[in-house]
Amino acid sequence: MCNETKIAEIKDRVYQANRRLPEEGLVKLTWGNVSEIDRKLKIVVIKPSGVPYDELKPEDMVVCDLQGKTFEKPSLKPSSDLLTHLMLYQQFKDISAIVHTHPSHAVAWAQSGREVPVYGTTHADTFYGDIPCTRQLLEAEVQTEYEENTGKVIIECFKEKEICPQAIPGILVFSHGPFTFGATPEKAVENMIVLDEICQLAKATEELNGNTVRTPQYLLDKHYYRKHGKTAYYGQ
Amino acid sequence: MCNETKIAEIKDRVYQANRRLPEEGLVKLTWGNVSEIDRKLKIVVIKPSGVPYDELKPEDMVVCDLQGKTFEKPSLKPSSDLLTHLMLYQQFKDISAIVHTHPSHAVAWAQSGREVPVYGTTHADTFYGDIPCTRQLLEAEVQTEYEENTGKVIIECFKEKEICPQAIPGILVFSHGPFTFGATPEKAVENMIVLDEICQLAKATEELNGNTVRTPQYLLDKHYYRKHGKTAYYGQ
Amino acid sequence: MCNETKIAEIKDRVYQANRRLPEEGLVKLTWGNVSEIDRKLKIVVIKPSGVPYDELKPEDMVVCDLQGKTFEKPSLKPSSDLLTHLMLYQQFKDISAIVHTHPSHAVAWAQSGREVPVYGTTHADTFYGDIPCTRQLLEAEVQTEYEENTGKVIIECFKEKEICPQAIPGILVFSHGPFTFGATPEKAVENMIVLDEICQLAKATEELNGNTVRTPQYLLDKHYYRKHGKTAYYGQ
Amino acid sequence: MCNETKIAEIKDRVYQANRRLPEEGLVKLTWGNVSEIDRKLKIVVIKPSGVPYDELKPEDMVVCDLQGKTFEKPSLKPSSDLLTHLMLYQQFKDISAIVHTHPSHAVAWAQSGREVPVYGTTHADTFYGDIPCTRQLLEAEVQTEYEENTGKVIIECFKEKEICPQAIPGILVFSHGPFTFGATPEKAVENMIVLDEICQLAKATEELNGNTVRTPQYLLDKHYYRKHGKTAYYGQ
Repeated sequence: MCNETKIAEIKDRVYQANRRLPEEGLVKLTWGNVSEIDRKLKIVVIKPSGVPYDELKPEDMVVCDLQGKTFEKPSLKPSSDLLTHLMLYQQFKDISAIVHTHPSHAVAWAQSGREVPVYGTTHADTFYGDIPCTRQLLEAEVQTEYEENTGKVIIECFKEKEICPQAIPGILVFSHGPFTFGATPEKAVENMIVLDEICQLAKATEELNGNTVRTPQYLLDKHYYRKHGKTAYYGQ
Repeated sequence: MCNETKIAEIKDRVYQANRRLPEEGLVKLTWGNVSEIDRKLKIVVIKPSGVPYDELKPEDMVVCDLQGKTFEKPSLKPSSDLLTHLMLYQQFKDISAIVHTHPSHAVAWAQSGREVPVYGTTHADTFYGDIPCTRQLLEAEVQTEYEENTGKVIIECFKEKEICPQAIPGILVFSHGPFTFGATPEKAVENMIVLDEICQLAKATEELNGNTVRTPQYLLDKHYYRKHGKTAYYGQ
Repeated sequence: MCNETKIAEIKDRVYQANRRLPEEGLVKLTWGNVSEIDRKLKIVVIKPSGVPYDELKPEDMVVCDLQGKTFEKPSLKPSSDLLTHLMLYQQFKDISAIVHTHPSHAVAWAQSGREVPVYGTTHADTFYGDIPCTRQLLEAEVQTEYEENTGKVIIECFKEKEICPQAIPGILVFSHGPFTFGATPEKAVENMIVLDEICQLAKATEELNGNTVRTPQYLLDKHYYRKHGKTAYYGQ
Repeated sequence: MCNETKIAEIKDRVYQANRRLPEEGLVKLTWGNVSEIDRKLKIVVIKPSGVPYDELKPEDMVVCDLQGKTFEKPSLKPSSDLLTHLMLYQQFKDISAIVHTHPSHAVAWAQSGREVPVYGTTHADTFYGDIPCTRQLLEAEVQTEYEENTGKVIIECFKEKEICPQAIPGILVFSHGPFTFGATPEKAVENMIVLDEICQLAKATEELNGNTVRTPQYLLDKHYYRKHGKTAYYGQ
């Protein structure tokens, strides 16, 4: 396949995934973006900045190199979060798509600065463990290279907890909101749907004040591994 | 009626009921399934595994024998929860349809491990008593024959509480989510709509912190029996 | 206008109001009904029992005399709540329409057995004071003539509090749900929309745990009387 | 451009903004209104009083002078909140549009009498600091010139806190609800969308009971100033 066709296909996938954000109730106004990397072509395709979702067209998707320089001229401006995406793609070699948006339940957890504990199999089906929450960025990290540093605290958090985006394809940035990852834009959006839903479930579970117990490790293992990896037999 | 026509009708009912799950807000992604048993034909018809609801077609519904072996070749793979359904059909001779899905309010109660108390007539109209919640499955029950064992803890819970699915057509599986039953797929879906709604109502009732009292037995009797059994006179 | 035309118009108003219940999110399944009385013709027109909202037709609306006997033959069965409506029409001479349904926020308050305090002008615009909640019905009142007795505890509650449905066009029945009143079916439905919304607002207001104060009487007076009565100047 | 064309354009903008209120879930029944001022023409255009949103037409928008006298004859009656709008336009010279409505989350905060603290970047992107809440109006202020006095307590609150509508384009009126401001009706509606959303987020954040911390000033500065003012680089 020639590169032009390939790029058009990536643009279309990124466009479809961005359009799905408001349809799934994951975004208000222009508060979200999806990107995809092609590591062979060394490009990232991302939503343009400030364009309302219902005015987006596939050809509006912005193509950049891995330093964030746009390829095509003229080009719309890429999403301001591009530099965070690039930082994450550089570190996490196995992911091909990233979603950042501001859905209500996940943002509330991010604002509370708490990890989301595993309280049930809905969580375990997609995330193999608690959803982490980064530390607060320091003043210097905010004042200079803020978007890159947002990527850096995400990477730092994954390292410190010794987890990886394949097993835990999402994270909360303290005071800000969630990022999710996937092998495709579609999968990364689905992971955001799940993340927001389990944030809602976890809050309600705690509020019910019952025998709230963390899901036992053996149940987490079962639900995760019947959907993921070599022994998967669920919904395939 | 010849068997083929009969099976086509069952497939259509199961298809319609599955399509209703997202319409009623009872499901995200592919997180739910509906089945129907025909005890004379000795078959169960169930949603195929992993197919999005908006791509489902009536002919996609999977026909199995009572051990879970698919009849038609080629066939889509049946829902992974099939073995739980089969276990329940074997034990509960009076039910003909089962729904399992992950609606937010019912899953939150399941994750809290609590029974849902009868707090009002909306509950009493459909469920003659508290909605039970199973015990947690043991490690061994999860590691081997997990889906069958999910059915077994449901059956165990009904037995221990000396209740039956005719009077209480729904249950919560601890850490997991709800199952509902019915004489038809349509009725089982309606019972899921009611179950999720009364889970929402019960949580809000407790949060209002008022004179929250369990509904008196005589009011439970009145509302249940004006809709069910020989003395029913409501909405018929 | 001949009576037949008049009855057709009433049926159409009652039909429109019933159809609006699911559109406004005030009802699930068949859990609600609207009626209108014509005191000259001595008839009440009400939703038929057990018919789904999307299958309703204007001509399905059931016409009864003031004892609840259906006029037209053949006729669908009137809503089981008819006898409650009749009891209320007999007592409250100034109302012409009644709505009973099970919206989530109002039912939660009804189940908690609490009155809804006036916490703001959204409440004061429509209800001149707290929304009352009846006492629990006694066992004997439930076992015999339950629907009539539901009407009786509503009437008793209005009397004891020395309020009237003109100023407070809605009430909660303990363990059950809300009834609202109006000069037309449309107005009674609007009062149900308001009642459910202020139930939601009042719960959230209490949860915010702030300087929650009951709205001062002078603000209640201002908001109520700028919309109602001889001095009204708002939205007319 | 002749004045007539200019007025028709303002009417259309005000109409579009009013229609968006129910689409965005910011309003029930007729509980909201949008206006725009043209300071050269010395006119304010506002929603007519009591007209349902789905019956509105652009030509229905009411044109008044700065004392609130309608220009065109015949004219629909302007929204009863007009005098509040006029008071605010007179004081705040830099705003050109005002929205008042009753969305659930913002009204709950208004009823609680609390300011909305900055708990995250979703807030900081649009509001440079806590959302203020006015004092309660006194009895005399309610009984006479209520609508003007509503404007006055808003102005008093901005003055006492030494903030301005450019940086904090919204406020809560105690016991009542929110007002938002903007350079255009569209922008003022967007500010209401944001205000209601951050009210929802702030409540949930507090309920999660975690390490809830106010967003540090340097993060507030960063998010606000990357979207506003001379150094803005976000979504432009």
